[in-house]
Amino acid sequence: MLFHVQMEVRLPHDMPAAQADDIKTREKAVAQEYQRQGKWPHLWRVAGRYANISIIDVADIDELHALLSSLPLFPYMDIRVTPLARHPSAI
Amino acid sequence: MLFHVQMEVRLPHDMPAAQADDIKTREKAVAQEYQRQGKWPHLWRVAGRYANISIIDVADIDELHALLSSLPLFPYMDIRVTPLARHPSAI
Amino acid sequence: MLFHVQMEVRLPHDMPAAQADDIKTREKAVAQEYQRQGKWPHLWRVAGRYANISIIDVADIDELHALLSSLPLFPYMDIRVTPLARHPSAI
Amino acid sequence: MLFHVQMEVRLPHDMPAAQADDIKTREKAVAQEYQRQGKWPHLWRVAGRYANISIIDVADIDELHALLSSLPLFPYMDIRVTPLARHPSAI
Amino acid sequence: MLFHVQMEVRLPHDMPAAQADDIKTREKAVAQEYQRQGKWPHLWRVAGRYANISIIDVADIDELHALLSSLPLFPYMDIRVTPLARHPSAI
Amino acid sequence: MLFHVQMEVRLPHDMPAAQADDIKTREKAVAQEYQRQGKWPHLWRVAGRYANISIIDVADIDELHALLSSLPLFPYMDIRVTPLARHPSAI
Amino acid sequence: MLFHVQMEVRLPHDMPAAQADDIKTREKAVAQEYQRQGKWPHLWRVAGRYANISIIDVADIDELHALLSSLPLFPYMDIRVTPLARHPSAI
Amino acid sequence: MLFHVQMEVRLPHDMPAAQADDIKTREKAVAQEYQRQGKWPHLWRVAGRYANISIIDVADIDELHALLSSLPLFPYMDIRVTPLARHPSAI
Amino acid sequence: MLFHVQMEVRLPHDMPAAQADDIKTREKAVAQEYQRQGKWPHLWRVAGRYANISIIDVADIDELHALLSSLPLFPYMDIRVTPLARHPSAI
Amino acid sequence: MLFHVQMEVRLPHDMPAAQADDIKTREKAVAQEYQRQGKWPHLWRVAGRYANISIIDVADIDELHALLSSLPLFPYMDIRVTPLARHPSAI
Repeated sequence: MLFHVQMEVRLPHDMPAAQADDIKTREKAVAQEYQRQGKWPHLWRVAGRYANISIIDVADIDELHALLSSLPLFPYMDIRVTPLARHPSAI
Repeated sequence: MLFHVQMEVRLPHDMPAAQADDIKTREKAVAQEYQRQGKWPHLWRVAGRYANISIIDVADIDELHALLSSLPLFPYMDIRVTPLARHPSAI
Repeated sequence: MLFHVQMEVRLPHDMPAAQADDIKTREKAVAQEYQRQGKWPHLWRVAGRYANISIIDVADIDELHALLSSLPLFPYMDIRVTPLARHPSAI
Repeated sequence: MLFHVQMEVRLPHDMPAAQADDIKTREKAVAQEYQRQGKWPHLWRVAGRYANISIIDVADIDELHALLSSLPLFPYMDIRVTPLARHPSAI
Repeated sequence: MLFHVQMEVRLPHDMPAAQADDIKTREKAVAQEYQRQGKWPHLWRVAGRYANISIIDVADIDELHALLSSLPLFPYMDIRVTPLARHPSAI
Repeated sequence: MLFHVQMEVRLPHDMPAAQADDIKTREKAVAQEYQRQGKWPHLWRVAGRYANISIIDVADIDELHALLSSLPLFPYMDIRVTPLARHPSAI
Repeated sequence: MLFHVQMEVRLPHDMPAAQADDIKTREKAVAQEYQRQGKWPHLWRVAGRYANISIIDVADIDELHALLSSLPLFPYMDIRVTPLARHPSAI
Repeated sequence: MLFHVQMEVRLPHDMPAAQADDIKTREKAVAQEYQRQGKWPHLWRVAGRYANISIIDVADIDELHALLSSLPLFPYMDIRVTPLARHPSAI
Repeated sequence: MLFHVQMEVRLPHDMPAAQADDIKTREKAVAQEYQRQGKWPHLWRVAGRYANISIIDVADIDELHALLSSLPLFPYMDIRVTPLARHPSAI
Repeated sequence: MLFHVQMEVRLPHDMPAAQADDIKTREKAVAQEYQRQGKWPHLWRVAGRYANISIIDVADIDELHALLSSLPLFPYMDIRVTPLARHPSAI
């Protein structure tokens, strides 16, 4: 089941660089693990912004929220979810 | 080059059904042709809306606009385009 | 799987009364059938508006869109969907 | 009398973890007590957000505000209330 | 129980003057009857707009919606409702 | 002359409790004094929010601004003013 | 007493040219009469829009609404009013 | 003097094709004449929309409004103007 | 050449009072000097807000930006500029 | 390939002046280098704001994001990108 997810990252400007780097390193590892599991089939950078547009493929909404809230950057992100259905013109 | 495109369709309520059907039939054919050409790799329905979220893969912005404005529904759509870059965490 | 759905109805002012009445009668029948099936567990009127807030319980997003787009009022509604997960404090 | 309530939580990033945990623990206890009393019949998590959508069932608006402002997270929440009436198609 | 209600009137420009006059005459009669009943204690014109801000005093939300949807202008109004609680500083 | 005033209070989370209490105590005293003078005829709490909707009755706009900016909470409030005229259907 | 007024004109595209011309001619006459009376001290065109920003000087809010609603274009305008107080730095 | 101008075109769907074509033909001629005069140095299409972003170079604001309101599409456009100053980092 | 300028002031709550007072004192002096020079012909307080609406009369856009960015409060203001043309009904 | 880019700068008020000056100095150098390379053909100041409107000319979206995210002010900017196509009326 596919969900369209927009994530905007807003790290506090006074966060120590080491802490920010640690969060980003862990975020990358987690994001890549979900990709390898096939649960995060698309991850794109929004040009010009510290933001991404993603497609998440999970079994249900609880798994979606569990995945998103497990991200190390979750406390610093504004996330918007749009459920996607099959389009009748898609081949 | 990937663009994220959101399309909201707003057909006038007083359009004759035959005309609307004709536009939709041609729209479907055109959309499927672009998909077969690999230029419209993803096409999803936004649940609950006469709208879609698409990923368009074209050589440049002029081709993007040519593609979108060639759609039979173009005069009746509100379209928003977001350019997508490669994400550093994408595998 | 639960979805929070907001529906705003916007019937054209020049729709003949008989046509509007027919659509509303069919809408009511369809809505009540979905309720009887357990797929539309909650349906509330937004006070002061020709609008409702609903909870829809379906197996997946495709079924959600099929249900919503089967409503006779669908062409005249602005619909917003929010996916709902279980809340950790819910009993 | 039913009210639709949307709550967005915005804890300051510099709040000590112990203080945040204490507030959340107390929030959970209070929310569950209101649920047991039948005053908070529905509590859902908005997928991807530190937010909930709730249905509150109280005798009047003063009780609604008393309930909401008694929540330990109240000073950190953006709350929107929508009054709900019975829908003529509800069974 | 008090509700703050904002009403914006949007009559179609092509409505015949006689029909518009009839609706407005009936609206005025209904609004004044509700005022005499004490259910519409305040009714103010928003300066520069075909709009009003009202305070409605009813027993519950169903009565609020029944009152508002009984207004002859209801099909042509955009209405927003805000529930009001007693303010601790009010004397 | 009546003005509709919406006030949203946003106290900084790091304001010491004693300072906040002092401001609120003084705010209450000032608000009640204006009520006793007949200049603040209505003061309601917006349910679920640290906000109020008020009707202010003053001789002119300068007095309105003087009143509002004399409030101890003024530096922490987002205030919106709407001028109210007599409504032709008001009795 | 000064009010800042923004007026956006939205004439229906299907209004006959003669009718539109008549309304505009009368609007101009009325606007100039109010200017001569000193009640409309400033009237500027918003560059690029069929809109104006005006300063209206009237005795009270009822006179403001009477003036604005007497304009021949009133049924076709979206008007926003902002009350203006004396600025402490104005000379 | 440079102004950044965004123009969104909204032709009524029921305008006869011949009339629309005539307006567009005249619009193109006028736009190209202003370009030749050096008053419209940049004209870009917003990808996916019947809209443009333009830079207009005129002597003053009155000339700007005269230019924009002389466009055959002016009655059908939503235009937003942003004044541009020299940037200290521009070379 | 006239520009309509809206300025919202947002001083950080943790700015020391002496620093804020110094900025405001200098702001007032600068604002009054521009008024005496005829470059700031109108300056009004928006009732209920730490904000003003101004008319600025300068030779060109560069002078406008130079004037606005020379204000001591400039780093703490959200400023919106609207270019004003002569209105055909202005006398 | 041209992109329209709007950049709003929001430096934290508590950033030390020396650090802010250093960032601005480096920003200017980088911006001018991109201009000399022909990748940033237009850079304008939005009058009254710490903001710019730019035209960026790059080979693709990845280069666009690389350019924008290399700016020293990038962590402090809100950036919006609009892809530009050739306009059929451009000469």
